[in-house]
Amino acid sequence: MKIGILGYGNLGRGVESAIRQNADMELTAILTRRNPADVKPQTEGVKVYSVDDIEQLKGQIDVLVLCGGSATDLPEQTPEYAKYFNVIDSFDTHARIPEHFANVDKVAKENGHVALISCGWDPGMFSLMRLYGSAVLPEGEDYTFWGKGVSQGHSDAIRRVKGVKNGKQYTIPVESALEAVRSGSNPELTTRQKHTRECFVVAEEGADLKQIENDIKTMPNYFDQYDTTVHFITEEELQRDHAGIPHGGFVFRTGVTGFNKENKHVIEYSLKLDSNPEFTSSVILSFARAINRLSNEGVSGCKTVFDIAPAYLSPLSADELRAHML
Amino acid sequence: MKIGILGYGNLGRGVESAIRQNADMELTAILTRRNPADVKPQTEGVKVYSVDDIEQLKGQIDVLVLCGGSATDLPEQTPEYAKYFNVIDSFDTHARIPEHFANVDKVAKENGHVALISCGWDPGMFSLMRLYGSAVLPEGEDYTFWGKGVSQGHSDAIRRVKGVKNGKQYTIPVESALEAVRSGSNPELTTRQKHTRECFVVAEEGADLKQIENDIKTMPNYFDQYDTTVHFITEEELQRDHAGIPHGGFVFRTGVTGFNKENKHVIEYSLKLDSNPEFTSSVILSFARAINRLSNEGVSGCKTVFDIAPAYLSPLSADELRAHML
Repeated sequence: MKIGILGYGNLGRGVESAIRQNADMELTAILTRRNPADVKPQTEGVKVYSVDDIEQLKGQIDVLVLCGGSATDLPEQTPEYAKYFNVIDSFDTHARIPEHFANVDKVAKENGHVALISCGWDPGMFSLMRLYGSAVLPEGEDYTFWGKGVSQGHSDAIRRVKGVKNGKQYTIPVESALEAVRSGSNPELTTRQKHTRECFVVAEEGADLKQIENDIKTMPNYFDQYDTTVHFITEEELQRDHAGIPHGGFVFRTGVTGFNKENKHVIEYSLKLDSNPEFTSSVILSFARAINRLSNEGVSGCKTVFDIAPAYLSPLSADELRAHML
Repeated sequence: MKIGILGYGNLGRGVESAIRQNADMELTAILTRRNPADVKPQTEGVKVYSVDDIEQLKGQIDVLVLCGGSATDLPEQTPEYAKYFNVIDSFDTHARIPEHFANVDKVAKENGHVALISCGWDPGMFSLMRLYGSAVLPEGEDYTFWGKGVSQGHSDAIRRVKGVKNGKQYTIPVESALEAVRSGSNPELTTRQKHTRECFVVAEEGADLKQIENDIKTMPNYFDQYDTTVHFITEEELQRDHAGIPHGGFVFRTGVTGFNKENKHVIEYSLKLDSNPEFTSSVILSFARAINRLSNEGVSGCKTVFDIAPAYLSPLSADELRAHML
């Protein structure tokens, strides 16, 4: 499989490194909106193209992985490039998924390509767990918790506060809430009861620390509904102790069965990820394999993780899967 | 969807009760090898038939759920009844799955039916987790733990020991082994390090308890490779404290990503089930929905959980799934 990468940020580099772990894949091209000469891939021999020249790669790429952001990049890019290639993205603005799906589906069908949107872990693996959970335990409750991990959006929000030079925010699930869900008691949990937020802030010299702390803790939507802790640290400490992009979380389905609904069941799925973008990339590549197969079968249109039979994700044959994994 | 149940034991009753939790399903018939008059369904109005009359139900059942045992029932029944119906079973003799698949596939294709074998939680949901885990983290290790739960096979083995009147065996995963796997250290674990076995035994009057304990602990394959504890209790205590059929377990995938494989990831899936047969039944019904849909699309042949796109399991439409679960 020939893979193209559009966008060489954290996710693009994650895809590049994950390709090395999949023997049936090779990196054919990196596309960038920057000056191609400024992009230095880690993979020997791979060419970097300006996105303006993308059409000349038609026929040379089996799946193009779109590594842009959900706010403005992907709503434009995924439908646009589904004209030329099978494409996959990690569009994660949950509320806009139906609209994005419709836009991509139309173009993909018109051009005979397969697209898969909203791939990664949430949306992605977590979505699959919500679907499997509700299908196998129809009478029950879903719970999704995120963390412990770095929220890019909340870290950005901290950095916009007056007097803040740099900062990083961790989302942390509340242990007692996890335990309550695990017990099968189907608790109703408020936003504050589910997660706490921990901020590591580098203040500008002479800044009013009390004011910064107050501005963060009272920030509407981002922090005001949570118990938030603010730690002031030095830039050196931030670089030393908080350079990573870990993340993770939990999806639960709890439900009952039996003629008198007397039996409880708890399904728990959790991820502990040292690198959010690298794990996301790794998930994307397994689904890229699936859409390449579907494309070879003559399928076209937009898909999500819900539409992919799991066997399509694996390099193993159906016989091998049945013999060794079932 | 019209569901038929063949075999009215724990699993058959589990399917019967689970049908009530799925608004798009109804129980059409129960088939038994016993005298139909001896089977008393809990569902009002449902007819009980002798399995000898099964052919007369052709055309009246969308999916027949085969609730027999894997040792002798299912290898015969699943290919036989795939002649007349779409069928689903919980065949769990892992080593014989390829052979069973081939037998069922041939008949299902010849007769234009869809069959799905080896459904439940292991094989079943655990198999799916092994497949997803290895596909999204290609460089890594799999771990499956079972329990805490009742092993039917080991309980049967205890009851065959001289001097034993009744007994029940729990398989228990070793907490320190779970923690080692969770840490991402990819430990190599022996059989003894992964699980312990706990036995609750009712001895016959005057039996030699020391001998019973020794006979259990040294029983080849069943117990000799495990640290086993034997508790002697009364029949009343057994009925009072050990009447349930709980089970569960854990599937882990741990792996690395990054140009230098510097980032670790841990995926953990766990089940805590008050009733093993009822949860199995509930999983089976969601896959019964899927094979009915495939059959309506004109598909035929034998499938496993690996071949089913998750969207087919849910009563919700693709639009609803994308809007609410992705």
